[in-house]
Amino acid sequence: MSEFVRDQWYVAAYGSEVGRELLARTILGEPIVLYRTGDGTAVALADRCVHRRFPLSESKLVDDTIVCGYHGFTYGTDGACVAVPGQKRIPRTARVPSYPVVEQDSFVWVWIGDAGKAATTPVPRAPWLADPGYATVCGMEPLNARASLLVDNLMDLSHETYLHGGYIGTPEVAETPITTEVDDEAGVVYVSRHMDDTECPPFYAESTGLAGRITRWQDIEFHPPCLYLLHSRVAPVGVLPNADGTDPDAFHVEVVYAITPSTENSTYDFWAVARDFAQDDAEVSDYLRESNRTVVLQDVDALNVLEKVIADEPAGYQELSINIDTGGLAARRILARMARAGDPTKVGS
Amino acid sequence: MSEFVRDQWYVAAYGSEVGRELLARTILGEPIVLYRTGDGTAVALADRCVHRRFPLSESKLVDDTIVCGYHGFTYGTDGACVAVPGQKRIPRTARVPSYPVVEQDSFVWVWIGDAGKAATTPVPRAPWLADPGYATVCGMEPLNARASLLVDNLMDLSHETYLHGGYIGTPEVAETPITTEVDDEAGVVYVSRHMDDTECPPFYAESTGLAGRITRWQDIEFHPPCLYLLHSRVAPVGVLPNADGTDPDAFHVEVVYAITPSTENSTYDFWAVARDFAQDDAEVSDYLRESNRTVVLQDVDALNVLEKVIADEPAGYQELSINIDTGGLAARRILARMARAGDPTKVGS
Amino acid sequence: MSEFVRDQWYVAAYGSEVGRELLARTILGEPIVLYRTGDGTAVALADRCVHRRFPLSESKLVDDTIVCGYHGFTYGTDGACVAVPGQKRIPRTARVPSYPVVEQDSFVWVWIGDAGKAATTPVPRAPWLADPGYATVCGMEPLNARASLLVDNLMDLSHETYLHGGYIGTPEVAETPITTEVDDEAGVVYVSRHMDDTECPPFYAESTGLAGRITRWQDIEFHPPCLYLLHSRVAPVGVLPNADGTDPDAFHVEVVYAITPSTENSTYDFWAVARDFAQDDAEVSDYLRESNRTVVLQDVDALNVLEKVIADEPAGYQELSINIDTGGLAARRILARMARAGDPTKVGS
Repeated sequence: MSEFVRDQWYVAAYGSEVGRELLARTILGEPIVLYRTGDGTAVALADRCVHRRFPLSESKLVDDTIVCGYHGFTYGTDGACVAVPGQKRIPRTARVPSYPVVEQDSFVWVWIGDAGKAATTPVPRAPWLADPGYATVCGMEPLNARASLLVDNLMDLSHETYLHGGYIGTPEVAETPITTEVDDEAGVVYVSRHMDDTECPPFYAESTGLAGRITRWQDIEFHPPCLYLLHSRVAPVGVLPNADGTDPDAFHVEVVYAITPSTENSTYDFWAVARDFAQDDAEVSDYLRESNRTVVLQDVDALNVLEKVIADEPAGYQELSINIDTGGLAARRILARMARAGDPTKVGS
Repeated sequence: MSEFVRDQWYVAAYGSEVGRELLARTILGEPIVLYRTGDGTAVALADRCVHRRFPLSESKLVDDTIVCGYHGFTYGTDGACVAVPGQKRIPRTARVPSYPVVEQDSFVWVWIGDAGKAATTPVPRAPWLADPGYATVCGMEPLNARASLLVDNLMDLSHETYLHGGYIGTPEVAETPITTEVDDEAGVVYVSRHMDDTECPPFYAESTGLAGRITRWQDIEFHPPCLYLLHSRVAPVGVLPNADGTDPDAFHVEVVYAITPSTENSTYDFWAVARDFAQDDAEVSDYLRESNRTVVLQDVDALNVLEKVIADEPAGYQELSINIDTGGLAARRILARMARAGDPTKVGS
Repeated sequence: MSEFVRDQWYVAAYGSEVGRELLARTILGEPIVLYRTGDGTAVALADRCVHRRFPLSESKLVDDTIVCGYHGFTYGTDGACVAVPGQKRIPRTARVPSYPVVEQDSFVWVWIGDAGKAATTPVPRAPWLADPGYATVCGMEPLNARASLLVDNLMDLSHETYLHGGYIGTPEVAETPITTEVDDEAGVVYVSRHMDDTECPPFYAESTGLAGRITRWQDIEFHPPCLYLLHSRVAPVGVLPNADGTDPDAFHVEVVYAITPSTENSTYDFWAVARDFAQDDAEVSDYLRESNRTVVLQDVDALNVLEKVIADEPAGYQELSINIDTGGLAARRILARMARAGDPTKVGS
């Protein structure tokens, strides 16, 4: 039984990935082909020809239409067939689903599920990624593991100490207790870890130039099912925001993850790091891109291992959860509720 | 539930592939070992030792017997054991099935199913392949897709335009309507596409020397379950056969496919191209061999993709068929009827 | 349904493989991590962190504890957690199973199943492997096949003639009848093949220097579920042991196999060859190591093929057994009895 949360916006790609080449992505198990029309509009269609199910993504873009690479069935941007081989009459049902698309904050978002609900559901925001006041580096790593393992991973940053030592982890991350808040109505989980006097890991030392010990705040906002924001603040020890909320002497990094389930056991792991300092320093950009990609790949390796572990383990395996897991467990609870709500057979269960 | 049509002749190999080396093939899911005796007779036995099921094809041919590579059980050409290790007495049941074999038209045909019906069932014919009046090039490509996808592919040549452009496809193939005839009693499907005035694709331009536009006829005969014949005729525009049926000014190519299901999801794709012109021209042979192999591999790539698509798709997927599919749908209908007829549990269903 | 015989000692590793690096092995389907403490004691723990099931074998050994590589849960040698991240209180249930371990005869034996029965069950013996009077070469090859195929293989050495010709096989092995004895009470199967006047295969000719024909005795003892001993005796033709049991003019090789099921379809194939001659001759050691490893890999290749054959074959496949299989069939019977005895749902069935 699929646990996908369907009636939601998901990141299918960066805007920069979608162009005049056909791009294949599988989102919540649905094969999708993405492209951009001549006037720049992003289009998302089901990636299977209605005739003999050939992938449209392995076909040809001619002007704004896709011509199937097997028998030439030709589709417009709305998914309707405009030509078929050997006859003039086009069957009324010759049409593939088209998906609602919104471009925002550098992402191409697609709506999977009941299209009627798309217009009334706001697209989640990660404004820093398209904000000229921030410099952003980003990437996407395919994960051969279920999305929930990535949610677990990101909700509990104590793993930075063990999995990401030498990059973003220091002993204090695992040692410092967290506070967790859950806004059940809005469906948002907040996890905070404020380290007052801590070692500065290379990721921040190299990018900010801070030399000594620091005050380091990690404030997570998770908007299930798919958008994870980590507001990261580092400053010299004891430097705090002003009473009016301004914070000129600190360095702010907005770490954004868009977690898009591809299949039951694979996930697109979109990651971005936006900073409000050294915006024009290409060396800092290069360093943060390489460094964060390394960190993401450390997670990918660990989660790919866990996916295999789960595949091999007997049914009924029990995990042990402790305080650090409070945010992750809240996220699971909200995700399960959303999955039930989107599945009429499960309502009230 | 297997959809194999069992009580039929299938091509297991070219005669030239069967010799004094043991050759393993899996036909309709049955592992078979093929070899040729000292006097040149082709033999087909079940490829599993009766003792501990070791593949006889990974064993040793000693004179006309196979000596199992694990414990030395030794089999004669009729499948009966003639020696076992450590004792003189050979158990009565020490015998592997042997399959009826016929060599004809360059192929080694084997009979899968009820051997009692083999003698009364004629072996399908493709006489050009062994006719000195024709020059033939041929090959076999393993396909990681079910046989029915290859039948679909070959019954609807409109795909030449899209999948084989630059080789055998031109726009006119997909544009020209077909005529389809089904001889339900004989179990043969005929599909014809006659292009009166069309571009000459490289495959024919290079091999015949024809420079301008041509008359191009494609006359398909499919003899389910496994033999596909494409009578291809090209000539300068307007050149037609004589009233008496002779046709000296046209070029004739007999394209033969033998479609042998290996497992539920894999197939041997035997292909041959026989021509009645430039019979002694090795350059033309080389060109047609390379060119047709390229075309077959384009099909193999596309069908391997489709097999994966089918494996991933939800149950109840609906295709959309149009006029070009008339022949393919007739072939499916006859194949389903043959499968039912060969399966007593399905008769009348 | 698993056919594993659980309440038994199995070889998990050679003692030389277990040290200050974490070693992962899967025994009877259970993932296990092995290491040695600072004082040299071998430890075997379940290889899954209780928190989020990360493999402890991909973690870090710190002094005598394992620190989980994901979130730092820290385990002592008894499997109990001694530290968790972000809090001082350690949950009472934070503990992984630890396995009884015995080091004996160069092997690290672990007890899978009901630990309460370990103390009263003797660890099987292969004393030659740690006997200074013998020189031993050994290795372990992973087998992608069920353990029972290796038992079958070793109980019927007639396969030496066909699979290991040029190494240990000669025609006489398959030709010479065996005698089989089964001690049902002790659960031991004995198979003997005494060749009075036989060709000397390279394995023995090269290592002993014997030039002519030999007397060759193969006396197998199989102690189900896992320990296989082949007492091999070679001597010049006609040289027999003395009446008092001494046998100074023969060469004795003790071939030991420890057969450890890893999963239902994979096995650790531990092999050792101990000799009472040329004990200090490194060249003989090198020769026997290479030669026996080659022989083991010939078996591995054949059994990996058989495992695939079994996976593809229809249910209800029937083998044919003859005299040479008497020992193997007895071994199967005892293994099935042991599996039933260890599974309360099967007792009396």
